[in-house]
This record gives sequence, C-alpha cells and structure tokens, in this order.
Amino acid sequence: MKKSVFKQYLPILAWGAEYQRETLISDLLAAVIVTIMLIPQSLAYALLAGLPPEMGLYASMLPLIAYAIFGTSRTLSVGPVAVVSLMTASAIGHIAAPGSVGYIEAALLLALFSGLFLLGMGILRMGFLANFLSHPVIAGFITASGIIIAFSQLKHILGVTVSGENLFHLLRALAGEVANTNMYTVAVGLPVLAFLFWVRSGLKPLLMRAGLSDKAAGMLSKTGPVLGIIATSVAAYVFDLGSHGVKLVGDVPNGIPSLQMPNLSNSAWRELLVSAIFISVIGFVESVSVGHTLAAKRRQKITPNQELIGLGAANVAAAFSGGYPVTGGFARSVVNFDAGAVTPAAGMFTAVGIAVAAMFFTPYLAYLPKATLAATIIVAVLSLVDFSILKRSWGYARSDFIAVSTTLFITLVAGVESGVACGVFASLALHLYKTSTPHMAVVGEVPGTEHYRNVNRHKVITHSEILSLRVDESLYFANAGFIEDRIYELLEQNPAVRHVILMCTAVNEIDLSALEALESINHRLSDSGIKLYLSEVKGPVSDVLKKTDFITHLSGEIFLSHHHGVQKILASTAGQESDGVENWNI
Amino acid sequence: MKKSVFKQYLPILAWGAEYQRETLISDLLAAVIVTIMLIPQSLAYALLAGLPPEMGLYASMLPLIAYAIFGTSRTLSVGPVAVVSLMTASAIGHIAAPGSVGYIEAALLLALFSGLFLLGMGILRMGFLANFLSHPVIAGFITASGIIIAFSQLKHILGVTVSGENLFHLLRALAGEVANTNMYTVAVGLPVLAFLFWVRSGLKPLLMRAGLSDKAAGMLSKTGPVLGIIATSVAAYVFDLGSHGVKLVGDVPNGIPSLQMPNLSNSAWRELLVSAIFISVIGFVESVSVGHTLAAKRRQKITPNQELIGLGAANVAAAFSGGYPVTGGFARSVVNFDAGAVTPAAGMFTAVGIAVAAMFFTPYLAYLPKATLAATIIVAVLSLVDFSILKRSWGYARSDFIAVSTTLFITLVAGVESGVACGVFASLALHLYKTSTPHMAVVGEVPGTEHYRNVNRHKVITHSEILSLRVDESLYFANAGFIEDRIYELLEQNPAVRHVILMCTAVNEIDLSALEALESINHRLSDSGIKLYLSEVKGPVSDVLKKTDFITHLSGEIFLSHHHGVQKILASTAGQESDGVENWNI
Repeated sequence: MKKSVFKQYLPILAWGAEYQRETLISDLLAAVIVTIMLIPQSLAYALLAGLPPEMGLYASMLPLIAYAIFGTSRTLSVGPVAVVSLMTASAIGHIAAPGSVGYIEAALLLALFSGLFLLGMGILRMGFLANFLSHPVIAGFITASGIIIAFSQLKHILGVTVSGENLFHLLRALAGEVANTNMYTVAVGLPVLAFLFWVRSGLKPLLMRAGLSDKAAGMLSKTGPVLGIIATSVAAYVFDLGSHGVKLVGDVPNGIPSLQMPNLSNSAWRELLVSAIFISVIGFVESVSVGHTLAAKRRQKITPNQELIGLGAANVAAAFSGGYPVTGGFARSVVNFDAGAVTPAAGMFTAVGIAVAAMFFTPYLAYLPKATLAATIIVAVLSLVDFSILKRSWGYARSDFIAVSTTLFITLVAGVESGVACGVFASLALHLYKTSTPHMAVVGEVPGTEHYRNVNRHKVITHSEILSLRVDESLYFANAGFIEDRIYELLEQNPAVRHVILMCTAVNEIDLSALEALESINHRLSDSGIKLYLSEVKGPVSDVLKKTDFITHLSGEIFLSHHHGVQKILASTAGQESDGVENWNI
Repeated sequence: MKKSVFKQYLPILAWGAEYQRETLISDLLAAVIVTIMLIPQSLAYALLAGLPPEMGLYASMLPLIAYAIFGTSRTLSVGPVAVVSLMTASAIGHIAAPGSVGYIEAALLLALFSGLFLLGMGILRMGFLANFLSHPVIAGFITASGIIIAFSQLKHILGVTVSGENLFHLLRALAGEVANTNMYTVAVGLPVLAFLFWVRSGLKPLLMRAGLSDKAAGMLSKTGPVLGIIATSVAAYVFDLGSHGVKLVGDVPNGIPSLQMPNLSNSAWRELLVSAIFISVIGFVESVSVGHTLAAKRRQKITPNQELIGLGAANVAAAFSGGYPVTGGFARSVVNFDAGAVTPAAGMFTAVGIAVAAMFFTPYLAYLPKATLAATIIVAVLSLVDFSILKRSWGYARSDFIAVSTTLFITLVAGVESGVACGVFASLALHLYKTSTPHMAVVGEVPGTEHYRNVNRHKVITHSEILSLRVDESLYFANAGFIEDRIYELLEQNPAVRHVILMCTAVNEIDLSALEALESINHRLSDSGIKLYLSEVKGPVSDVLKKTDFITHLSGEIFLSHHHGVQKILASTAGQESDGVENWNI
C-alpha cells in the first residue's frame, strides 16, 4: 500500500477522513480536561522562561493546531514544557534583560529558528540524528534540568530577585538574598506548595472515597493546580497582598494574539542559532519518546521524520503568534491519552479552549501570585528528578555510568547546553574508545560440534600450529593498529603457529585503513613463513574485499566455515592434533 | 622478562649498553650523509615556516640528541619537516608578521607547547588517540599540504611577495603579483628547479654508469641539492645577483644556539595551544608511521607511547635551543636507514655534524638565493602529492572516498587545521552513521550443517514460525531504535512468526540504551504472543546481561548455539518444517 505524498506530509488527511461522532465526543472531553490543566502550566512555564504570562497561553493555541495538522502522534499534547522553557531562558538570558522588548523578540526568533531547523531536518529525513542522544544522556540531562528549574523557582516562593543558569549561580544568589525574604510571599508560597504536593498523592484517593471512579478521580486530581490558583488569587485580592510585596501576575492582555512576523532585524539572531539547535533536538527527542510510548499502548505508530515536520510547524506557528519554543509534553500528553483523546482533533479543541480562556478569563489573573505559579512548576519538575539511573547504569556498565554522571554534573554546574553537548560527546567518545580496543578471543573447537568458542571460557580443542582468533569488532581505522599489534603479540607468545585464521563472525565492515593493515599483516606473516586466512566473512564484507586484489595476495585463503577451514589446514599438514586446551598465552 | 622503568623510559640504556665499534662506524657514515642532506633541508624548511634560516639548523641539533635518548626507533631521523613547517607558518602567521620578534617567539612557544603536549600524551599512554586519524584522512591531508607548499614556494621562484595559507589565497595573490616577476630570480630558480628534478631521476643512473655501486649512487644522488646550493651561491656572488633584486639568505649568525627559556609572557600563547595540538598529532602520526615501516624491515619494534615521549623531548629541546616544531621526517629517515644507521647514535652524530656546519660554514650561506631553497622544497614536496588514494578509495568504499576527498578539499580551500579537523570529523561521523544503521540479515540453516546464513545469499532452510535475525553490529544507543523498528517491520511482513531469535554473533556490546530497547521489544512481542530469544551471545556481553534482570523477564531464552535453539523450539512446537527459502519479505 503506497501512501500518497499528501497523506505522508499531512497526516490529518488520514484521520480526518474517518472522523466520527463518537470520536468527536471523546476528543472534546479530553480537550476540556487538558485545557484546565494547561492554563496554569502555560502561565507557569512562561514565568520560568522569563516571559510575560500571556506568551504561555499564546504558545498553547496556534502551535497545537499546527501539530494536529502535521504530527503523526494521535495523542501527543504540544505546548510549553519545563525543560524547553528553561533552555529558552538560558539562551535568551545572554542576549537581553528579562522583561525587555529584546527579550521577547529573541524568544520569538528562537521559536522561528527552532521551527525552521526542525522542518529542515524533517524534509531531509535526518530524524536518525536524534539516536545519537543516548538514553543515559537524556536521563542525566532531564534530572539535572529538573533540579535547576526547582531551585530557580525558589526565588518566587521567597519573594526575592535572583538569576543564574546553573546550580552554583543559583545557590550563591539565593544565599545572598535569603535575608530579603518577603514573609507574605512565603505565606502564600509554602501552603500552596504543600497543597500541590498533597494533590499529587492525596487528592485522588479522597475523590475515590467520595465515590468517583478510579479514572475520573485520576483525571480530576490533575486539575488540582487550578484550585490553588483560584484560592491564592482570592487571598491576594482579599488581603491586598500586592501592597505587602507579594508579586502578582498583574494585567494580562485580553484576547487572542494577532499574527506577526518575528523581528528579523534583531541583531541577536546569530547568537540564537546554536541555542535553537539544542532546543530543537532536546524537544524532538523528548517528544518522540513520549509519542512512541503512547502510540505503542494503542498499537499505533509515529513517524519520527514526520514528527520533525509536525513540531517544526508548531514552532513556526508559535513564532508568528506571539508564543515561544514548544514541544510535546509528557505529563500533559498522558492526561490527554488517559482522558480518552482519540485523534489530534483533541489538540485543536484544546487550542480553542485556551483561546476562550484568554478572551474571557485573563482579567481574573491580575491577582494571581507568582509564588503560586512557581509552586506549580516545582511540583511538576520534581517528578523529572530521578537519580535511579545513576545506580542502574553503575550496576550495568561503567561507560553508561560515565555518560549519565557527566551529563548530570556538567548540566548542573555549567548549564543546559554544555550539559547536553558534553553528554553526547562523552557517550560517543566512550563508544569509539571501546570499538578502538576490541575484545579478541583465541577460539577452539567445542568437541563434537562445528562451533568455536573462547579458549578461556570453554573446554575446547586447539592445535599448536593453528591460531584461531576471533576479532569481536568491525575492522576500521581506529582499531586496525590495535588488532595488528595483538596478532604479533600472540605470535611472539606462541612460536609454533604456522597458520593464523581470523574468524570474522563479528566483523561487519573492513574499511580501507583496515584493509591496509591486513595487507601489512599478511606480508609480515608471509616473511616469517606463516599463512593468514579469514573465515566466516559476511556477504557485505566479502563483496567489498572482492573488489580489491587482497584475496590474490593473501598467503592463505578465505573459508566460508571456520571449522572446515581448520579441517582443511589439518589435512594438508602433518600437524599433530591435541585434545583439550593448550598453553595459550593470552 | 620485565623491563625496568628506566629502560622503558630511556631506550638509550638498552642500545647504549651494547654499543660496539662496528656500530660506531656504520652510524658515523650514515650521519655524514644525513648531515649533507639535512643542511639544505633545514634552511629550506625554516624558509617555508617563515623563520630565519639558522632556526632550521638549530632545530636539527639538540632535538636530534633528545630523540636519540628517549625515542624507540633505531633509525628515525628527527628534525624540521615540510608539513609541520607549513603548519607552523599557518599557526603563527595569524599572530605576528613573518620576520618580527613576535613571530620567532611564537615559533619557540609552539615547539614548547607541542613538546609538552606530546610528553603529556606519552606519560598518560594516550598514543591510541592517533588511531582516530584514519589512513584516508592522512593521505588526503599530506597530498593537499604538498600542493599548498609547492604553490607557496612559487613566489620565491618568481621573486615576488605573496602570502596565504590556502590554495585560493595563494593563487589569487600570485595572479596579482605575476607582473612584478623578477627575471633574475627566475633565471636562478627555474634552472635549479630543473636540475633538482633531474637529480631525482637522472643522477643515480649517471653515477652508476660512472662505476658506483647501486647503493652508493643512490646515497650520493641525495646530496644533489648541495650542488645546487653551491652553484647558485657562486653565481649570486660572481654576478652580484643581490643588487638585481634576487633575494639572498644574507647574514646567518655563526655558531651554535645558546639555551634560552621561551618567552612565556608572549600574550599570543593561548592562541597557539590549539595549533600545538594539531602539529603534535600530525607530527606524531607521520613519525610513527615512518618508524613502524623502518622497524618492520629489520624486525625491530617501536613503542608509540614512548615515541610520544621521544618526540616531546625533541620539541621541548627545540623550544629551548632556538628551533621550532620538529618530527620524524620520511625522506631523511629512509636515507639514514639506507646509509646503514644502526642506532640512534647516528642522530647524535648528525646533530654534531650540523653544529660543525653552523660554526664554520654559515658565512658561505650569505649569497645563497632563496629561490634555490624554494626549488629544494618544491621538488621535495611534490613527492608527497599522490592522487591515487582518491581512485583507490573510490573503488573500495564510498565512506573512505568521502573521508579522503573531504580532507583534501577542505585542506586546500580552508587550510591545514580545518582540513585535519574536518577529515577526522567526517571519518568518525561516517563510521558512526554506518554503525547506527546496521546490516541485518534474516538467516536460515545451511542444509546438513549447523551454520546459519543470509536467506538472500544462500540456499537455506527456514521455518515460517521462527524469525532468525542476525544483527551485524553491536547494539548501542545509536542503533537501538533502528533495530527495534526493523524487527517490527519484519514481523508485520511475516505474520506467521511466533518466535524471534536474535543471533548475536556480531554483537560485541549491548549498552544500557540497547538493553532498554530489548526490554521494550520483549514486552511488546509478549503482548502479541511472540517469544524473543537470543543466541550465540558472547562471553563479555553475557556477563553484562547476567547482572540485570533482563534474562528473567525474557519471554524466551538465551541459546549458546543458534542451531540448537532452533531445534529446541521446533521440538517444543507443532511447527511444520519447510525446505528451501520461504517468502521472507526483507
């Protein structure tokens, strides 16, 4: 079944064509619940990004519609998320002061570049690049980001002014400002923080005791933050907390944003390019991972390259409608999924819900304390913090542990972009280091079979004049010299050897540098009267070797089966066979 | 036999203890010939580096003695070489004007940093890092450098003043200056260029016809450049060419250099650090490659990590004695080897020879035309230019060709450091890309054996309910998702499958990301009633898996032998066996 190009690039044509009344009802219900959850989140994450609260709402309208048209996940909920908001603040904090016109312009540009970069990657089918961000790197990064975000919001709970993009800066700034704590702010912030923590674990059982179903109770408990917002706003109005130094959200413009071209004459744009790439990649990886998980639950599929286009379109939409960089959020997508969303239409309805809220409810936000939003953020991001990956990777493999801990540590002390960059670099460098010093095993025949196994692990039959060496890696430039040295070392230790067979079961490639190393080994062994053979060479490798004259120069030959090769050599020599493991100095 | 730490770090103790009279005579003879060859080369390469000629001589004294003490190659000849001289000019050309005090100070600092970096790498046993510079990258780099060097010397033949560190700059500058050509200079430069070309091919046969042995004729023809130097110096003196605009070497200080600390207060030192790393790595790789080749001819060995220390000591010595970055040179080492050098003492004697020359013969250099030195360089470097690697790699593998051509092209258009950096990046990126999209083969039983081969390449037996899949790569973060997708794709195309066996002969590692992918595959297959098995898991991989609970979660089991696994599954099911290749949609 060949898909049309239209359907490939416009997934909405597929699900839109089959849209039915029951689906509409499910999607509408999910949209209502997600809208209620998304309003406080949008306001809070805009605060985290250092932007006016309405930009959080704007980022939750048009981008959702764009994703619904171009995205392949049926249930992913796109919008402002914590980590991307932190990265946005970090990127534009270098360029302009929070609250300035330049800061807002930079956020729009960042969304534009991020969107164009994602679209470009999608059109060029470069989604595979995200695979180079390993799970340990992502886990370390998310945990560190959660910690930084939580500490960055403490200032709103204490009512002080500090800034810093890594943990050290934040802690030092907080320590210096703690004496200026505003007690009225704390009096709002701490109770709401405690309430929100309780909502996470205590509200659902309470609702269930009140007779709600498990699912309904779960859904309803997600709307807890709205209660906190209403309660603290009322308190701020009644007690006139604003005049006691409690910072309030203040006037939020009413209505939906007008479409505007981002200001490309902003001279900061060059500096934003690299940040846009980081934000795009992190946003994409997180979003695809959420999308995969949800799709698998319903036996659906997402297409990473088309997801790039969906997220790219969402970010371009954010740039033109007064938003800032967006991506698929985990918590909100799970709510959307659990609430029964069937198609991306739920996202469109959510956008409409947010627009309605922006048109009619913004005046009520004037008395909302920022401390309440900060508490919402802290409670949300602490669920991202998960140190278990450190323990798990430590128990599994040192290289994975190093990748996790490098990313975690560098993100904490040097910021988000350095953290991701060092994590990717460390994981790739460790992988390359491992493949450059591959495991090699001298192998012998498992008695009574045609199988050859490591002489150190199994009781096998070997022959003193034959060295059967299994190289557990592709032969390529970074390990060609290492393998060469190892062969000479083994020959020095085993002077009786007259035949060296390289067993190539694990050799998936022989590149030009490795071919030259093999030629040099062949030449040097020939000089010493030792023949070189290869065995079990795979089709693709053999195809490449056949294009060269290596096979004609080879002193020995290439055997399809290692066992038959050994038999052939034994038959052609007067070699005495010996049972059991010999003295292989390895 | 355990080597003492002294002997390990001071190879001179090993060969020095056994030094004999015959060895002395061989080494002395080789030193005389290398000295005669090295004098014009040292002067010429200093010119190429933009440095005063005496610095070339100084770089050929103490560094040779330092290498003789610490180096492991018996016959490597260390000193100024073409490529490193070009890299030196390129590095310090950014910082100071050629001929200025700052330029000379920068050259000394560059030698110091380069030496310290090499020493540090040696002490930390980091010689393996050089393996990441693949042969195609080096070949492309050397060829491009040769071209740039040759064009950079044309100005001396034409008698004009131009500069530029890449081919475009050079060609544009030469085109602009060609009208100012000094005909007297050309009248010196062209004949000497022609003479030197002829020396390379025509002098040796002539000497042999005159009765010299093949070897003696070969040796003597290497001293040809000295003839050119003498002839053109005499001509410059007799015809007073200096007053006709022919640039001469001029006064060269007499004697040997005094030891001096490099000027660390030079503010340019930060900018030199990166260049020092590039120069060190390129110099080390070239030197080790020459050292390996020569050592192999006499069944000797070199130790790359100790070579780092030898070359590091040589560069530190150069920094303290008025030299500039040095390394092992190919042409000169071959001459040293062919002339019968037996131990590094030959290098020490060469240093003495150069010192004698510096004490007594420098006054005679005053009339030496720079055009003569330029001709020496051009003839020497054109032997580095070798485009055959382009053809060879094209015929072998696209990835090798891309690595060669990227390095060649970027070096030519953007300079030496960019060229090496892009080459290394390209070769690593290509390697990672290949391993991130590994070859996977559905395999079946070769009739009558226990072997399993690709169903597309061999006539094999398969079973419709068993999918035997061989993954031809280690499972790691960059390919975990790719492999997961491929398995689901194959299952969609082959709905009868109830058992999936991943044949792990080529799987040398399973990292944490890949383990999580396997867990997710296992989980998803379980949901569909399909069992997952692994077979032929290697010892090191199995050791790691045993540390996790993956094996207890696994719906199937892990088979030591793929064949026995298939037999066991067949025995436990009512699956009908089928002969020949089935309809595997792959």
